[in-house]
This record gives sequence, C-alpha cells and structure tokens, in this order.
Amino acid sequence: MAEFIPRFNLLRLGWRALSFSKSSLTLSTQPRRLSSSGTNSFGLLFDIDGVLVRGKTPIPAAKQCFRKLVDGNGKYKVPVVFVTNAGNCVRQIKAEQLSHLLEVEVSPDQVMLSHSPLRVFHQFHNMCVLVSGQGPVLEVAHNLGFQNVITIDMLREVYPLLDVVDHHRRPKDVVPSSKELPPIEAVVLFGEPIRWETNLQLIVDVLLTNGRPGNPLTSMCYPHIPVLACNMDLLWMAEAKNPRFGHGMFLVCLESLYKKITGYDLQYEALIGKPSVITYNYAELLIRQQAESLGWTESVRRLYAIGDNPMADIYGANLYNRYLQSMRHARAQVQAQRGSAGQVATDIQFETVDDAKNSGKVMVGGSYEHRLPESCSSILVCTGVYNRDQQDLPPDHTVTEQRIFHGHRDFRFDPSLTQPSFVVHDVQEAVELVFQQEEWPLE
Amino acid sequence: MAEFIPRFNLLRLGWRALSFSKSSLTLSTQPRRLSSSGTNSFGLLFDIDGVLVRGKTPIPAAKQCFRKLVDGNGKYKVPVVFVTNAGNCVRQIKAEQLSHLLEVEVSPDQVMLSHSPLRVFHQFHNMCVLVSGQGPVLEVAHNLGFQNVITIDMLREVYPLLDVVDHHRRPKDVVPSSKELPPIEAVVLFGEPIRWETNLQLIVDVLLTNGRPGNPLTSMCYPHIPVLACNMDLLWMAEAKNPRFGHGMFLVCLESLYKKITGYDLQYEALIGKPSVITYNYAELLIRQQAESLGWTESVRRLYAIGDNPMADIYGANLYNRYLQSMRHARAQVQAQRGSAGQVATDIQFETVDDAKNSGKVMVGGSYEHRLPESCSSILVCTGVYNRDQQDLPPDHTVTEQRIFHGHRDFRFDPSLTQPSFVVHDVQEAVELVFQQEEWPLE
Repeated sequence: MAEFIPRFNLLRLGWRALSFSKSSLTLSTQPRRLSSSGTNSFGLLFDIDGVLVRGKTPIPAAKQCFRKLVDGNGKYKVPVVFVTNAGNCVRQIKAEQLSHLLEVEVSPDQVMLSHSPLRVFHQFHNMCVLVSGQGPVLEVAHNLGFQNVITIDMLREVYPLLDVVDHHRRPKDVVPSSKELPPIEAVVLFGEPIRWETNLQLIVDVLLTNGRPGNPLTSMCYPHIPVLACNMDLLWMAEAKNPRFGHGMFLVCLESLYKKITGYDLQYEALIGKPSVITYNYAELLIRQQAESLGWTESVRRLYAIGDNPMADIYGANLYNRYLQSMRHARAQVQAQRGSAGQVATDIQFETVDDAKNSGKVMVGGSYEHRLPESCSSILVCTGVYNRDQQDLPPDHTVTEQRIFHGHRDFRFDPSLTQPSFVVHDVQEAVELVFQQEEWPLE
Repeated sequence: MAEFIPRFNLLRLGWRALSFSKSSLTLSTQPRRLSSSGTNSFGLLFDIDGVLVRGKTPIPAAKQCFRKLVDGNGKYKVPVVFVTNAGNCVRQIKAEQLSHLLEVEVSPDQVMLSHSPLRVFHQFHNMCVLVSGQGPVLEVAHNLGFQNVITIDMLREVYPLLDVVDHHRRPKDVVPSSKELPPIEAVVLFGEPIRWETNLQLIVDVLLTNGRPGNPLTSMCYPHIPVLACNMDLLWMAEAKNPRFGHGMFLVCLESLYKKITGYDLQYEALIGKPSVITYNYAELLIRQQAESLGWTESVRRLYAIGDNPMADIYGANLYNRYLQSMRHARAQVQAQRGSAGQVATDIQFETVDDAKNSGKVMVGGSYEHRLPESCSSILVCTGVYNRDQQDLPPDHTVTEQRIFHGHRDFRFDPSLTQPSFVVHDVQEAVELVFQQEEWPLE
C-alpha cells in the first residue's frame, strides 16, 4: 500500500532544512547605511523564469516595478543585469523578449545566459568541440568564440550507424560515409536538447572513444576529454502546476549512464550557470560595465540578486557573497603583511567542491585588480519554484529531507547557503526592499 | 592527462570476472547420455540480435543451420523458440522477418518478445495502464490482454503543459483541456521510446501524482503505483562497431531521475525479459506447446539457450537452470516426505533478488503440475556483444572490473552465472554442438 505523507510537498523537495528564521521572512526595517562616500552604489541581478515570467506568461509585478527602475528617458537608475540559466537561445532574442515584456528597453549587454561566461574560456575556443543543446547551437557557439564546432546532427550525418534508438531514423542502407570529422577535443553542454537518447548515445560514444566515435573501442580512456556544462537547474517553473525538467535532469542522465557503462564518474571541466561562482563573477563584470556606461565613478559596492529558486538563485548569490568575503579577508591579510594598500591576486580557499576550476579563478585574468563588491544579498520571491505557504517542513521529516538534494552532484550541499537574506512576495516587493535598504526613494 | 588502459575493452565491460575455464571454452567430446526412455527430448531457445542478425544484416551461419533444423517438408525436428528482448513490435512481424531471413517458416507462436509474459499478468489487464515504448504500443498492449490503455501521446494531448523540454512542441496558446483521463493505476515499460525527455517527464509526473499528472503535488506518495518493465538490456550489438543503447539505459535514466527528485528508489513490480526467470518459464511453456504440436509424447527434458550476451542470455539461462535444479530438489524432498510420486507445488528459495515476484511464481498457476525440464544449458556465440578475442581480462584489472556491472540494478550479481556451459563461434557451431551432445545426427 502507498504511504501518504501529508503536507510534504514536492515543490519544496529542492532544498532541505529550509526553515527560514523569522528575521529573514520579514522585511528589515533597519535601512542599510550609506557607503562611506555617501553615494548609493549598488546593482541588481534579476532571474527571469519564476520572477518576471512563468513560461510565456508575464508576472504582473514585473512590468510595474521596471517602470520605476528607469528615469523619464528610459535610462536605468542603477545597473541591472538579467541572469538566467536558460541557454538554448542568443542574448539578442532574450533582450527583445524582455524589452517587450517589461516595456523598458533591455540591451543584449544586460542579458546573461547560462553559457555567457564561456566567452572567457579562451583555452577552448580553438579546440574542436561537440556542442549539445537545442535551437541555434551553432550560432551560440560561434558568438561565444568557438571556432571549430561540431553539432550532434553533424555527427549523426557522418556516423549514421551510431544513433539507432528510433527505429524510423535508422539508416535504410548502410553505406560507409565518405566524410571525416576531426577528433573531438571537448564537449560543451549548452542546455537541454531534444531527443535525449540521441545526445546521450553520441556524447557517451565521444567520451568512450576519446573523441573518435567512428572508431572501435580498444582501450578505456579516463579521464575522458573535457566536458563543460551550462545550466545545472534540475527543475523550473513553467505554466504547469508542478516543476518541469531542466538541463540538470539531462546531466543526471548523462552522469548515470556514463557511470553505469564505465564504472567511473563523469567529470566536468567546469559547471557554469547559477549557482556557480563563475556565473556571478561574470554578472559582476556586466554590472561594472553598466555602472561605467551610467557614468558612475564609484565602483559598485553591493549586489542584490533576486530569484525564485533557493538551490540556484539563493544558493548562488550566497556562495558568491561568501567568495567576496573570502576575497576581502585574503586581501586584508596580504595588505597587513605588506603594509601597503596595493591590491594583489591571492589564493582563496573554498569549502565547497565548486572550487578552483568552478570558482572565479578560471576567468579572472586581471580581474583581481579591480575593486570587488563588498557583498551580494539574496532575495527570494514566492512567484516561482518556491512557494512560502508550502515550505514549512514538519519537524518529523528530517530523515526524508536528508535523502533529497536538488543541487548538482558536484556541489557539496551547505544548507546555510539556501537561506535567503530576504523573502518577499514578488519582484516589485524585492525592488522596493532594495531601494528602502539603500535609502533611495524609488518613485 | 588521460590514462589509457591498454587491452581493457569496453565490449567486455558488461561482465566482470568473466574468465572461462578451459573446459567451457572447448567443445565437449563427451556426448550427453540419452534420456531413460531412449528418446531425444530437447528444445532450442535462440536469441536473435547478435546470433541470427546484427542490426538488419543476417549472420551467414544462421540460414545454413536452420536449413538443417527442418525436414524435407519444412517441419522442425525439435521445438524451437526465438527469445528476444526486443519489444517494440508485434510477434507476427518478427515471425515474418525471421521467416524471410532464415528461409524456413517461423510461426508467431515460436516468437517470444520481451513483453510476451505479460499475457499471464492477468491482475493488471483490467487496470488503467500507461504504456511506454515506440511502434505499435497500443496494439501490443491490447494483444497482451490490457483493456484500458493510455499512451504517452494521449497524456500529452490531454495535459499539454507537461511536456515542455522541446521549445517547438510547447503549446502556443494555453487552453485548459476539456478531456479527462481516468487515474493511471500502473505503468508498463515495453521498450526504449523515442524522445526520452517526454517519456521520462510524463512517467515521473504520473509516479509523483499517484497516477493523476494534471493535479498539483500535495503529498509524497511512496511506494508509487506499480511499474512493470520489459527488456533490461543495457547494450546490444547492431551494425555499429561498438554496442548501442538498449532499454536498460532508459531504465537507468528513469531510476536516476526518480531517485534524484524524491530521494527514494524506483520500484519495479516485475522485471521481464532475459535474464528474468519469468521469461524462461514462459519460453518453456512455448517449447512445451511446440513439442505437443510435433506429436511428442515425452516431455522436453533439456533446453539449450543460444545467445551472444553473457549478462542477458547466459546469465538468464543459468539462472533458469538453477531454478530448475531448485525445483527438482524441492520436489524430491516433498516426495521423500510423502513417500509418494505425486507432483505438488512447493516453495522455492532463491538466492537472487530476482525472486518471488520476478521468479516463475507470478505466472505459475497450475504450471507446477507439469514435468519441468531437467536442465537448461547456456551456449555463448562470438558474433555479437561477446567477442572471444577481446575478453581475456588482465589479472591486474580486478578492481576496475568490480566497479562495473551491466546487469540491472535489482539483480544481485553472481559472477558464476555468467559462465556459459559452452562457448562456440557462431550459431551453426552451437546447433551442431547440441545435436552432437544429444547423439542425433544433424544432416
């Protein structure tokens, strides 16, 4: 017989032990102090799905609050960047959709998709890469700087015997292909593809054959060629009553199949998209560029990240905030040792698995040189994956909760990072809260 | 840097510790003794893929040996049943394909697909079942006796908001469906579907919502509604140089996603198809019917199962052989206790997880009453998944081998069951071996 566990809602399965303290559930009445220079210097990061839209349906509060974020000329009052884990499109299209939706002009430079940080992964741009996703994957790859791109469809065409799950797509006559493809040197997973069986089979083939899927297997090659994955979201909120599968589910399939066949763990060269620090580092770069274009001379001191998903938006913002604190601490130590005020690059120790390659370091280059923000606050809205009414976990479900972790396999789960700085109803309340914190009248 | 492990071939990853003893690698020169009655009473079970064909390409030895298996009138000399784990078709079509391929008449009654044993799962036939697979799934379900069948496409039509991975298949306008579907009471997985993302999403939706995928999740229901799965084959050999994904890979995905979302293990009501004992029990029933139609008055004493896959064909035949020995032992004990020669039903203890519901018991009914075969020998051919030249595992890879198990999650792995009774080159050698064992001149 089935056992019904009342009040235990799947909508909240994504984050265990998520019992927000009273202080975080109410708006703070204590406004943030102005920065030492007396100026307001902050930027806003907006998630899109579950915050501004659900599927294709706009969330009413979004349009209202964006009207207040621009002046009479449509110029933004503060730097605004849209940080989404969506990836199967180009920034231009997303910016147009947002402009239409919010009735304010959104520039492509304000839009950050899950794969956007790949622009700074220069070491892969000249490699022969296999890309996986749907929509304009070739265009996306070229826009990001990849010069030598192979798609799943190109693989299917050159090696028609590989993809045979669909009986109707099996080759009628087996003729050896005259085409040749160069060995694939890395795999880039942009977002959830269609026909998962095809992508799963061909990606596993490429990993097992060291990038030569037409060759017979003669030796086990491990570690396999590098895999870069964008967007780890397991679930997301569309129009359906319950969360829908995201790219994170595809990654779970790929990891499980690779492990089942080889006995080894699939390894990622980088995991990109919220909650990865890589993504927030890149978002901060865009915020800085926005501030410059607004004519701000002061560097941005505080970031506010508004999202609906505790495991992506809140976890990511808090992880980045921890990164910022670690950077400040390390810098202060170096300064104390040197007795100078110079800013230098420093090694930072992280507690999470999401370190080294998944931290900001891979994309830093000279970025340690600029002044990083002091903090990144996380603001959780209740219009998407998270629903305040359904999140009160009964205390007797501790065991069940510990079985469930909706973050990615490679992120060591730290429950404290799912605790938002603030919980509000919707995006309008979130923006009002920020301006209240910053003592800046919004109207 | 990648580590190359020479001579460690993926083709053999499916079965660890598979070091055949010398005696099993050579044909026995000691023919089997005739049965007590002096008659030859045996039957043959043939796997199809990797034994008779590879993809659509016939294996030459197949036609030659089947010519010898029939008399001048095309009548089979011994009962022959084709036992395949394929499932996305109907028996009639498979029989026609085989007749054409082997140039002997093959009747649908000689063909057993992975789902064929579902005929005797009467307790599910009146339930409302969701079926998953490709091809004529509705026809297959009706042929098997299911009265109340819902397909994945029917679910998509009634609940258009559920399947949104493919951007192009998302509903343009969201209009609430006027149709209603009855609650789904069980899920039947016939074989690998196409568009795995769609089937994975909808099947998980059905399991999470207790069969009502249009409803919001309000409680966690576990155990979920029954799931019956046919064909656990992880990999199979087609024309490509390396093994291709089978339905077992789809099951790995489904199990992994369900576990990731809920923290609980997906449970199977039954796992059907080789190497399940259910399948061999059903094959034995067909062999018995063949023997009767050949006019044999003696019951069939010995079965020979010919296959290319150690984890499916060999493991299954050996597991069934162990079942037959257990049955004999139990019967002998009861006879000794009663001092009578009557045949009675007896509880059998199995060592594998594949017991109780996955053993013969679910389909037994009155089947304990007939005389079971004495043994089932396993014959491995080298024309498919298994390749003799590449199977010699170097002794230093013991650790690696233990990481890998290509059988299903729910089958406790017993390495001794992957040891075939005989290894031969191809199906012709296999048939010649059997007739030699049975002291029956084949020509």
